[in-house]
Amino acid sequence: MGNVFLNLRDPDDVKKIIESLKVNRKVEKVNLADVYHRVLAEDVHATIDLPPFERAAMDGYAVRAKDTFGASEDDPLNLNLIEKVRAGDVPLKKVEEGACTEIGTGAPLPSGADAVVMVEVTDVKEDKVEIFEAVAPGVNVAARGSDMEKGKLLLSKGTILTPEKIGVLSAIGMSKIPVFTQPTVAVISTGNELVKPGEELHYGKLYDINSKSISNAVKSCGCIPLASKIVKDDYNSIKEKINEFKHADVIITSGGTSAGAGDILRQVVSDMGDVLVHGISIKPGKPTLIGTLPEENVDIILFGLPGYPVSALMIFNVFVAPFLRGIAGVSDYNNKKEASSLKLSRRYHSARGRSHFVLVKIEGDTAHPILKDSGAITALAEADGYFEVPKNVEIIEEGEEVRVLPLSGFFN
Amino acid sequence: MGNVFLNLRDPDDVKKIIESLKVNRKVEKVNLADVYHRVLAEDVHATIDLPPFERAAMDGYAVRAKDTFGASEDDPLNLNLIEKVRAGDVPLKKVEEGACTEIGTGAPLPSGADAVVMVEVTDVKEDKVEIFEAVAPGVNVAARGSDMEKGKLLLSKGTILTPEKIGVLSAIGMSKIPVFTQPTVAVISTGNELVKPGEELHYGKLYDINSKSISNAVKSCGCIPLASKIVKDDYNSIKEKINEFKHADVIITSGGTSAGAGDILRQVVSDMGDVLVHGISIKPGKPTLIGTLPEENVDIILFGLPGYPVSALMIFNVFVAPFLRGIAGVSDYNNKKEASSLKLSRRYHSARGRSHFVLVKIEGDTAHPILKDSGAITALAEADGYFEVPKNVEIIEEGEEVRVLPLSGFFN
Repeated sequence: MGNVFLNLRDPDDVKKIIESLKVNRKVEKVNLADVYHRVLAEDVHATIDLPPFERAAMDGYAVRAKDTFGASEDDPLNLNLIEKVRAGDVPLKKVEEGACTEIGTGAPLPSGADAVVMVEVTDVKEDKVEIFEAVAPGVNVAARGSDMEKGKLLLSKGTILTPEKIGVLSAIGMSKIPVFTQPTVAVISTGNELVKPGEELHYGKLYDINSKSISNAVKSCGCIPLASKIVKDDYNSIKEKINEFKHADVIITSGGTSAGAGDILRQVVSDMGDVLVHGISIKPGKPTLIGTLPEENVDIILFGLPGYPVSALMIFNVFVAPFLRGIAGVSDYNNKKEASSLKLSRRYHSARGRSHFVLVKIEGDTAHPILKDSGAITALAEADGYFEVPKNVEIIEEGEEVRVLPLSGFFN
Repeated sequence: MGNVFLNLRDPDDVKKIIESLKVNRKVEKVNLADVYHRVLAEDVHATIDLPPFERAAMDGYAVRAKDTFGASEDDPLNLNLIEKVRAGDVPLKKVEEGACTEIGTGAPLPSGADAVVMVEVTDVKEDKVEIFEAVAPGVNVAARGSDMEKGKLLLSKGTILTPEKIGVLSAIGMSKIPVFTQPTVAVISTGNELVKPGEELHYGKLYDINSKSISNAVKSCGCIPLASKIVKDDYNSIKEKINEFKHADVIITSGGTSAGAGDILRQVVSDMGDVLVHGISIKPGKPTLIGTLPEENVDIILFGLPGYPVSALMIFNVFVAPFLRGIAGVSDYNNKKEASSLKLSRRYHSARGRSHFVLVKIEGDTAHPILKDSGAITALAEADGYFEVPKNVEIIEEGEEVRVLPLSGFFN
C-alpha cells in the first residue's frame, strides 16, 4: 500500500473535458398523452390557420356592421333573427341586409356578417333583435389565421414540453410528437460491504444508498436510470457489470475509486477504454474518475463517483447533472433555475488549494452549512442546496452572502 | 338570452373558500424504487444506529492510539501487522499491544483498536508497519451511532422524496415506504366544437386543447390526471360524465361556464350538489365555477374552468394548482419556488375594478407582457410565467418591477 494518488485536476478543467463529451441524440415519436417534460426534436410549424376559420369572439349577434350604424341606447335598431349558431355548428344562412344570426363564442361567422354585437347590448323578442349599440366591421370577430398563420413557426426544436406547450401541440391536432429519446444511464454501486435495502444487515455491512439516490437524481435530469445490482469490489465483477450495460449511453459507478483500497475501477476503465480524469482538486469528491469506453458509433461515458453518499451526490450535482441535462436537452430549464443569494449562518473555514462544495439547510434567507463528514446520512436528510468555496478563498464570515444552488431533483 | 351573469366574487374570498375545501388523504406503501417525488405519510425514525458499527473513516492501520505516542517523521515506531480488513469484512483478531490491522475506509474497527493511522503516514514491509505520526484515541474512527442513533427522527411526515431523501430511506434499509396516495383528478373538456387531436378537423370545429394542457398541469402538482373524453355541451352529457368520475377526488371541467351560451354546468352542479362560486372578479377567467358534489365520506370538489385555453390555464395556476399541491402534500415545494422580480418591458393598462393576471415571456430580467386575447394559442407558446395587477391598480409603467410567478409545470 501507500499513496498511489492521483493526477488532481482543477474543477474548471474537468468541466471543460465533460463539455467535450458526446452521445448520440436519437429521436422518437411519442403519443401526445405521454410527452410531459419531453424535449421537442424538431421545429413545429402551424399545420392549420389558428383560428382555422373566422369566428365570434363573444356571445351575441352576427351582423353586417353597417346595419347597426346609428343604433344607441335611446334609439335602438331592429334586425331579423334568421338562425342560431353555437360553437361547433356550421351556419347555413347568409346574413343579408337587415338580418342577424344569434352566435356563440367560438362559432363560425355566417357569410355576409362582418361583426358581432355583444348580447349585453341587445334585447330579443321572438325573431326580432333590438340593437342598442353600433359596431364597426371586425368588432368581436377573430379572423382566420389572426393568431397564427399556417406554416409559421409555433414551437422550436429543443422546447421542453410543459403543460402549456402540450396545449399548443393539441391546438394543431398533433397526436404523434417527435421528441429526443431520453438518454439511458446505468447506475452501479460497488462495494463488498453493501446490502440492498429490505435485506438483512449483518455486522460490518451497510445498506446501499447511492444506487437509489443517484438513480433518482438521474430521473431529475430527464434521463432514464437503468436498474442495477450491487457489485463486489473486484476487477472481474466490475468489468462484467460494465459489459452488461454497453447498451447504455452513460454508466455511473460509485465506490471503488479511492486509492488505498485498491485502484480497481481505474484498471478496468484503462483496460476497456480511456481514463480522462482520475482525481479532482475539490472537497468532497477528490477520487472521482471519468472515462470513455469505445462502442460502435460513439463512446460510452463513464463517471466513477466516490462511495460516500454525500461525496457521490455532490459530484453528481456539480459535474454529472449538467452533463446529463445537456444530453437530455433539458439544460434550458436549468438555466432558468436560479441560484439564491443567502446569508451564511456561521463562519466557514476551508483549506486553501481545493475548491470546497458545502451542503446547506435553507431557512428563510439563511443558509446553514452542514458540517458533517461525507459519510453522514443526516447531511442528506437536512440538505436543501449547496454553495462553492473557490480554491483561493479560506474563510467566509458569518452573515456573508453565498450563492446557493438547489440540489438536482425537481425536474422529471 | 340576456345577461344572466353572475355573482362576481373577489379573488381573495375565492382563495379562502378553496382553502376550506377538504379531501381524504389516503396512505399507501410503495416500493423504494418508485417513490420519486412522493410525499412521506409518516415520520421515519432511524431503525438502526448510523453508522451501525464503529468503523474506519480512512484507509490505513487500526491501532491502539497509545502505541503510536511519540512516533514522528524522524523517529517512526514499528507495529506488527496481524490482519487485513476491507469494507464488508468482519475483523477476526484483537489488536493487542504493539499490533495493528490494515483497514479500509468503512470497515469495522477490530476490538482492541481505538484509532486509525492514515496510510499516507505509514510504510509497510511484509508484516511490519512503520508509523510516522502519533494519533489520539478516536482519530479517523466513526463511532457507532455517531451520525444518528437508533430511534431518532430521521425524516418528517410530509417530506417530499427527492433523490437525497430517498438515499436516507435506503440508509436504514427501508424497502416499503408509507406515502400519501396521489389525489386523482378527472379532466373533462366540454364543447360541441371540440375534436380530439389526431382526428380530422371539419369546418367550425377546433382541436381540444384544455384536456391535455390541464391534465399535464395536474401532473405537475403531484396529482394523477384521469383520462377523459370530450363531452357535448348539454345537460345530460355533462351530468353523465361527472357521474362517471365519482371515484375521483377532484373534477376539473373546462368550457360551458359562460352565461350567454347557456349556463349548463351551473345547473348540473346545482342539481347534483352545491355551487360555491360562480364568477370571479378577475380577467381572464371571470365565469369560473367552484362546486362540491356529495359523496359517501367527503365531497368531490369540482372546478369549472372557462373554455378559452389561456383563461383555463390562468385560473388553473392561480386557484386550482395551489389547492392540488396542498392536497397532494407538495405545497412545501411551492413555497420554495420563488417569484422573480422582473422589469416590465412596456406600459400595462388594466381596467380598474377587476384583478388582472397577465402572461409574460421572460428574457433576462425583463418580462414582456403577452397582450393577446384568451383564445390565442401563441400566448401559450410564448408564456414563461405571469404577474397579477391588483384591482385598484390601473397602470404599471414600463420599467416598473413586477412579481412574476412561474407557470405550474416543473414539479414531478
